[in-house]
Amino acid sequence: MPEAISIVPTDDQLAAVKYDDNGLVPAIVQDDVTGHVLMMAWMNAETLAQSLAEGRTVFWSRSRQEVWRKGDTSGDRQWIRSATYDCDGDTLLFRVEQEGSGACHTGRYTCFYRSFGPDDGSNGHG
Amino acid sequence: MPEAISIVPTDDQLAAVKYDDNGLVPAIVQDDVTGHVLMMAWMNAETLAQSLAEGRTVFWSRSRQEVWRKGDTSGDRQWIRSATYDCDGDTLLFRVEQEGSGACHTGRYTCFYRSFGPDDGSNGHG
Repeated sequence: MPEAISIVPTDDQLAAVKYDDNGLVPAIVQDDVTGHVLMMAWMNAETLAQSLAEGRTVFWSRSRQEVWRKGDTSGDRQWIRSATYDCDGDTLLFRVEQEGSGACHTGRYTCFYRSFGPDDGSNGHG
Repeated sequence: MPEAISIVPTDDQLAAVKYDDNGLVPAIVQDDVTGHVLMMAWMNAETLAQSLAEGRTVFWSRSRQEVWRKGDTSGDRQWIRSATYDCDGDTLLFRVEQEGSGACHTGRYTCFYRSFGPDDGSNGHG
């Protein structure tokens, strides 16, 4: 199993995060090794705190309206290697070590497997 | 000036994109060369079509409630090298050639310049 590394945020860092009207903030997840963007999901203050404490991503599922500990069922856990927030404090970025086959519920490595443009995917990467 | 490359989406591709209650979809922007995530902003159907047609990112500014042609004022234009949408069709990912000093309005290369954790930034990348 990959190593779980806790991150202890300061109060100022946590206070800088801005949540939307539903109490959620978008969280981008990027493969720390390949640099590929794997997925985007949502966190609330509670699951952000859990993610940092446990060293793996925990989201809020908008469709199921429940805490979504990524990989608990699929095994595709994401081990956090860095956690940043943007200039406005309204988007998070996690670089992770992706466990299992990938991040997507379809079994694919990344959720971003469909390109705009010609069907041959000639403008796509990877 | 970097090359502008238009992308002609199919009707099916455009129809797969899902917008939120405000008619917006989050758009992640990644440096096509370095792989660093630069920023996240929002598009509506109109600015997505403009982005693909012009080959550079055009967003909808939620704070100003107007079309935001990224880089028109700053010169920090983003030239699209691939455009993808995720499994749920509710997030976009653009890989771009970043013009100028970077993507952030603070003048920084990326908007994600603040890390959670110790102030020495020892858990951060780049």
